This record gives sequence, C-alpha cells and structure tokens, in this order.
Amino acid sequence: MKIILREGKKYDMASVLLLIKELAEFEKEGNAVEVTKDDLERDGFGEVPAFKVFVAEHKGEIVGMALFYERYSTWKGRIIHLEDLIVKQAYRGKGFGKALYSKVLSYAHDQKLKRVSWEVLDWNKVAIDFYTSTGANIMPGWQVVHMNEHSLEAFAKEA
Amino acid sequence: MKIILREGKKYDMASVLLLIKELAEFEKEGNAVEVTKDDLERDGFGEVPAFKVFVAEHKGEIVGMALFYERYSTWKGRIIHLEDLIVKQAYRGKGFGKALYSKVLSYAHDQKLKRVSWEVLDWNKVAIDFYTSTGANIMPGWQVVHMNEHSLEAFAKEA
Repeated sequence: MKIILREGKKYDMASVLLLIKELAEFEKEGNAVEVTKDDLERDGFGEVPAFKVFVAEHKGEIVGMALFYERYSTWKGRIIHLEDLIVKQAYRGKGFGKALYSKVLSYAHDQKLKRVSWEVLDWNKVAIDFYTSTGANIMPGWQVVHMNEHSLEAFAKEA
Repeated sequence: MKIILREGKKYDMASVLLLIKELAEFEKEGNAVEVTKDDLERDGFGEVPAFKVFVAEHKGEIVGMALFYERYSTWKGRIIHLEDLIVKQAYRGKGFGKALYSKVLSYAHDQKLKRVSWEVLDWNKVAIDFYTSTGANIMPGWQVVHMNEHSLEAFAKEA
C-alpha cells in the first residue's frame, strides 16, 4: 500500500478529530474527548502553535496521524512528546503506524533533541513490544498524575 | 516562616539549576542533569519561552521552585504540565512546597485549563499522599516511555 506522509494542515483537523475519537473508543474512554475541530484549528495553527501533526494519506483519505509538541526536561532541555499515534482500524498492520512513528523520531533527531517521550497503557502489549523493539524504554516507577478541572475548581475555592 | 512567591526571572536560573541538581540527587540520578544555566536562560526567556517558573524566596535566597509549561491533550486541549516542584532539603515541611503547588494550580485554574498533569515516582509515598489529598489522581495503567538520544541516533541510522 502506498504511504503518503505529510504535515497536517488546518483543513485536516476534521479528519484528525475522527482519529482522536476512534482511539478514545479503543481506550474505553469515548466520552472523554472534549476537544472540537475549532479548538484544533485554533490551537494548532495560531501564532504559537500548541502542537504539530503528521498525517498519513491513502487514496486521498487520512488514515493515520501522529500529534506531538515540545516539552521541557530540566535534565535534557527541549524534548518532543508524542501525544497520539493513531491509525484507522482498517489500515493497521500495513506500515502506516511505523512510518508516522519514524517521522516523529526523525524530526526530533534532526533537531538534535535529546529525548522523545510518550505514554502507553500497560495492557497494550503489542504497542509496548513494538516500542521497546525500536530502542525505547518503559520507565520503571514513574506514575502519571492528573488533576482535572473539577478538582482544580475545588482546590482553587479552598485556597 | 515568611514565604515570598514570585515569577522566576532570567537572573534566577543559577539558583534554579542548583535546585534541579538537588532533586536529581534525591532521585538517585545526579549525573543525568545535562541542562546548563545558559540553556535555562535561553530556553525560558526567549521569544517563545519553553517553560515558566515560580520561585519561593526566604531572606533573599531561593529555597524552592515550580517549573511548568503547556502541553496539549487531544481530549482536553491546552493543559499545564508541572515538570518539577522542588524545595531545598533544609526548608521542607514549612509550607514552601504547598505554596508553590497552589500557585501553579491557581495559574491553570485562572486560565480555565482543564487539567494539570505531572509525574511521580511510585516509591515517593509522602508526595503521592499529598497529591491525592488535594484531589489529584494517580492514573492507573499509564506508563511513561522515553527514547533517549542514543536510541534516536541508532533508529535514525537504520531508518
């Protein structure tokens, strides 16, 4: 299958949002997606874009995407964080995911950044095996912490 | 003890770097800090700052800091990530940490952002108990993945 990779544009955000929703369903969190097409268009394509996205095209259809942005490590400096790597169900196992993944890693390497980070669910063995086979490390001991808007609201009221 | 909190400035970066190194020692990773004072000055105070920092002062000395930046959640949009929250050993348990923590959460709340995220080591029970007592959630199942510069280099050569 011919794989076309390119930088995602503002007019791709409807397709990108569909992919985001598909991944959320797979992670059993279908209702958690609050981001809209307008949000993605505004946040990704303003004066200081909040993210960058590569898309994979097949016959004019967007069948996968990798969305990433910079973070700042106080140990390593500027790094890349891969927020989402998504390939439409029907197109899995055909090289689109690996191509997008490689493109993000090459982008980080070209910029001489010292790390790419991302997160994975511990039951997603296929993904974990793939990542480690490419030289990535699952970091033992680190846990992800979130404070959501309701807790932020409650905390702010008390403070 | 009187707690003065303020936004960190370029001239604070030497003190901030000392705190970063102290935390790395505590996490048994003293040699992992590659960032320099010059890096912090350039990256935090350019046209598009890569991070923001609040510092805690006591008698003119910087005794703590919270360093954070924006990330982008494809579910929630713009969020804040708290990269480091550090208080000098001799000043722990005196309210500096909580004051810095509150300042970052209030900052996120004021900007109507829907999440603050951070990471914690699973053996750091004191920190975990504190975070959960304020309404934060330890996210079950998520693992942190890093690809470091050596693996990036090796991957780029093969690709």
